[in-house]
Amino acid sequence: MNYKEQLTHYVRSLLSGLKDYGVEEVVISPGSRSTPLAYGFVSDEDFKHSIQVDERSAAFFALGIAKASEKPVALLCTSGSAAANYFPALVEAYYARVPLIVLTADRPHELRQVGAPQTIDQVKLYGDHVKWFFDFPVADGHEATAPFVYHQASRGIQSSMTHPRGPVHFNIPFREPLMIDFAQKVPGKKPRTYLNVQSHLDIQAVKNLKDIVESSKKGIVVAGEILVSEKHQVESFLANLGWPVLADPLSNLRSTEHPELQSLIIENYDAILKNDTLYPPLSPDTVIRIGAQPVSKFLGIFLQHVKPSNFLIVDEHPNFRDALGLATQHLSVLPSALHHLSVTKKGHDTLTLWNDLNRLAREEVAHYIGNEVEEGAYVGTLIQSLPEESVLFTSSSMPIRDVDTFYSLTSKNQTVYANRGTNGIDGVVSTALGVQKALQKHVYLLIGDLAMLHDSNGLLLSRYQHLDATIVIVNNDGGGIFSYLPQSQEEVYFEKLFGTSSGLTFEKLAELYQLSYTLIDSKEQLAKLVSEPFKGLRILEVTTNRQLNTKRHRVLWQRIKEGGEKLL
Amino acid sequence: MNYKEQLTHYVRSLLSGLKDYGVEEVVISPGSRSTPLAYGFVSDEDFKHSIQVDERSAAFFALGIAKASEKPVALLCTSGSAAANYFPALVEAYYARVPLIVLTADRPHELRQVGAPQTIDQVKLYGDHVKWFFDFPVADGHEATAPFVYHQASRGIQSSMTHPRGPVHFNIPFREPLMIDFAQKVPGKKPRTYLNVQSHLDIQAVKNLKDIVESSKKGIVVAGEILVSEKHQVESFLANLGWPVLADPLSNLRSTEHPELQSLIIENYDAILKNDTLYPPLSPDTVIRIGAQPVSKFLGIFLQHVKPSNFLIVDEHPNFRDALGLATQHLSVLPSALHHLSVTKKGHDTLTLWNDLNRLAREEVAHYIGNEVEEGAYVGTLIQSLPEESVLFTSSSMPIRDVDTFYSLTSKNQTVYANRGTNGIDGVVSTALGVQKALQKHVYLLIGDLAMLHDSNGLLLSRYQHLDATIVIVNNDGGGIFSYLPQSQEEVYFEKLFGTSSGLTFEKLAELYQLSYTLIDSKEQLAKLVSEPFKGLRILEVTTNRQLNTKRHRVLWQRIKEGGEKLL
Repeated sequence: MNYKEQLTHYVRSLLSGLKDYGVEEVVISPGSRSTPLAYGFVSDEDFKHSIQVDERSAAFFALGIAKASEKPVALLCTSGSAAANYFPALVEAYYARVPLIVLTADRPHELRQVGAPQTIDQVKLYGDHVKWFFDFPVADGHEATAPFVYHQASRGIQSSMTHPRGPVHFNIPFREPLMIDFAQKVPGKKPRTYLNVQSHLDIQAVKNLKDIVESSKKGIVVAGEILVSEKHQVESFLANLGWPVLADPLSNLRSTEHPELQSLIIENYDAILKNDTLYPPLSPDTVIRIGAQPVSKFLGIFLQHVKPSNFLIVDEHPNFRDALGLATQHLSVLPSALHHLSVTKKGHDTLTLWNDLNRLAREEVAHYIGNEVEEGAYVGTLIQSLPEESVLFTSSSMPIRDVDTFYSLTSKNQTVYANRGTNGIDGVVSTALGVQKALQKHVYLLIGDLAMLHDSNGLLLSRYQHLDATIVIVNNDGGGIFSYLPQSQEEVYFEKLFGTSSGLTFEKLAELYQLSYTLIDSKEQLAKLVSEPFKGLRILEVTTNRQLNTKRHRVLWQRIKEGGEKLL
Repeated sequence: MNYKEQLTHYVRSLLSGLKDYGVEEVVISPGSRSTPLAYGFVSDEDFKHSIQVDERSAAFFALGIAKASEKPVALLCTSGSAAANYFPALVEAYYARVPLIVLTADRPHELRQVGAPQTIDQVKLYGDHVKWFFDFPVADGHEATAPFVYHQASRGIQSSMTHPRGPVHFNIPFREPLMIDFAQKVPGKKPRTYLNVQSHLDIQAVKNLKDIVESSKKGIVVAGEILVSEKHQVESFLANLGWPVLADPLSNLRSTEHPELQSLIIENYDAILKNDTLYPPLSPDTVIRIGAQPVSKFLGIFLQHVKPSNFLIVDEHPNFRDALGLATQHLSVLPSALHHLSVTKKGHDTLTLWNDLNRLAREEVAHYIGNEVEEGAYVGTLIQSLPEESVLFTSSSMPIRDVDTFYSLTSKNQTVYANRGTNGIDGVVSTALGVQKALQKHVYLLIGDLAMLHDSNGLLLSRYQHLDATIVIVNNDGGGIFSYLPQSQEEVYFEKLFGTSSGLTFEKLAELYQLSYTLIDSKEQLAKLVSEPFKGLRILEVTTNRQLNTKRHRVLWQRIKEGGEKLL
């Protein structure tokens, strides 16, 4: 084989390894050194490809696709700082446990660490924030090379997809010339079968769990973010268990058609637990936490105060998430594994109080959404207006907290996503659009002005592929969340350092990208626009006032507090 | 001391360490965990601070300030993915040898690796792309802590500023509450004196160098990017040496008032050396390369072909840049150290031919700029129109190559900057604005449409501080440089993968940020606008055609080739 044939054989073998083990999508950023793989991907009709010039956004877009599809998604960029731009999304993928297959093109060894242009040290570039790194060989025509790259690619997918999932990084050097032969195919290969050791409950774990559950009179479930594919089995377990379920928006349990579960879901715990006089009567003897830690700060304060004697964390990672330091047991399985557990239901001492408090809070929230005009009321209106089967992506910072406060139980089948691996406000637009790309459903993105500015380049994705989303920007002209923190009491420097008012609105940004734009002037208008069908990408902007938002939120919480005390 | 006093003492001590050793500027991105340092910086009038919400842009902005000021510049962000967004600029700073002091706030140990929100593993986050990493202690009130953080901060500056310069990373954990006492001061401290071992030429090196130089009849100097502060001493050395100087735009030697040097500068070597029939008559016996490797690809091809018997690289890094693999000697000093070398000038066998070829090419370039209307002619017009004492920042990719081709020798005092550590098209706007901030002079930025889109968030800097720059966008609607590469011959996928036409123009972006905007319709208009004084930030957009650009560039090079052959 000549070099071009060797290179083509190498590329096709590597891509077969990805394909045979489940990669269907790739997000490509333009560059020269990555040419062999780029041409390899686009000339293979088994791959769907997307284009994005800004690699930071490209990586978040791939993250969104992988998050919603629950499949491994490939990313391809050229050598140099391009690869460094992937870092924020990879860190998020690592902590959010999303399978990304990062392919960075590199120079061959003779051009490394000698100051060659557009060359950085890409070996272990992402440090501890990938599950696996491998520095590929060059296409040297040796008989071992092509089969090796096929298998190594497949091992990467397995590594990425084994729970806890996460990103893997392949660094792939190419010598010039970089052209492949499009006509040259590689013979098909029978994929190896990987028999993953899935975590199931063993007999001892089942017995322990049954003992704990059946001896508890005041147990609660804390449900954080779980995979959407896990939801139905988790619902069955929870309905069977019969305990109050404190459900984070990202558990997606606030939207349930399961009748028994509807009477167990407590969605207003953050507001309820701002009142510490309720701690003694609500104190649980056992907590079962499934999925990630919820966003609610007051739930954490409550749990640290009451220190339940049994605190079981169900988390597939050996280094499970336990920032509160309260775990007494850790079960290293996916939450769906609990589905196999059958327990004998007994009475429950605190379910009625939880339900009464929650009903009261739900009414206060509904009243607030109907009568107020600040940020939270708009967020509540948005959620109430979402059509059946819709997808909401929420930014970190204030939006996720407003969703936590204003998202009441519904029987509509809705799905909520967010980037909560690192809780960043970076890459939000791109991730949401990736979710849209994967699900091929209209996505509603709730985002603040700073996060929108941070990832305004996400909109550039729309110039290279068709996308279908409504972006609701809550523009409070700066960093709203800081107003709720103690540092906001400082008067001289606070606004400059934390407020960071840009004075910008988003009509011109919409015009730049030729998107539909509406400046929302009432909740009714927002409700109407959101509930009507829309195709394509649009921006709806709501302007609010940070000081007013903080003040009115506090009024709501005070009313829930006072109402709760009357129930005791 | 109570905790607030301990924390304040810690913060003030750390900041004193930075200040006493030369940090004057800090770029801050908003966040909660970094509150103690943020309040510490802004309440200390010895520091100038800038604000940017997008940490990727913030880091490039700091890079620009450090690059132009040649002083260490601090960067501050909160914990989590914010820190990951610094990565592209840090990689650039590492390879471009720019001193950045990166301060990332972190959670204290009890909240690390337990799934706490907005927490990632920040220990050695940037891997091998910083010169030094240190994980600071918490403010624990121990008597050793505050003096230690003072000294450790000062050691960081020294590490960053010692040649080869580069970024250092300090990870700084904070426990809540995060407020400091603004009134509390720390007693002054007498800074330690660091006696840096500066690299000077030792006697043996001087002798070797003199021998090589004085025995060469056809020596050339290849001058890449050097520090601006080095320029005058380098000029003296070069004038004394009397060899042809192949000067990259970033050497800043194409702009010189030194009369002897003017007759030595060869700026058109890239065009000249596209013709390999000139290799034998131009073949040097000795090459002295100072500074970074030039951008010219054909210079590299020429040198690899002729393999000079002496190839001396003057580079302050022990792992000096030598992608061509041709070095026969390495002198580990800054180029200014050569200033002390005095050599006896003898005749030079190839200076006349170099000068004749260069003069011919210079005339062709001038004729081209006057008569063509494509990209290169606009770049040439921009450079010719720059006022005295002006600063040009050029993007990587096509702009730096066009500057290489169309920047002819001038006696105007101009300075050219670019990000050539990794040659990325990321962060270009932000870096240029950082240069402006440091020099407090109007900066002219030459940039393509993709790089402009990539770092459009750089414009957000203008919402938080006054900036003064002219951004000339050469909009060829996609990736122009790829049209010069072999992969452009592929017809089915090339445009989609490499052209990546966005179809966007920049008027709306200017409106979003409330900047002055002009769509340029002639070279004369560009010349007029550039040569007239302007205050503030503005965009001048030139639209060009990629296919035409490539075609006309090739006509120019063909004319220079044909002219050169007639001279033989």
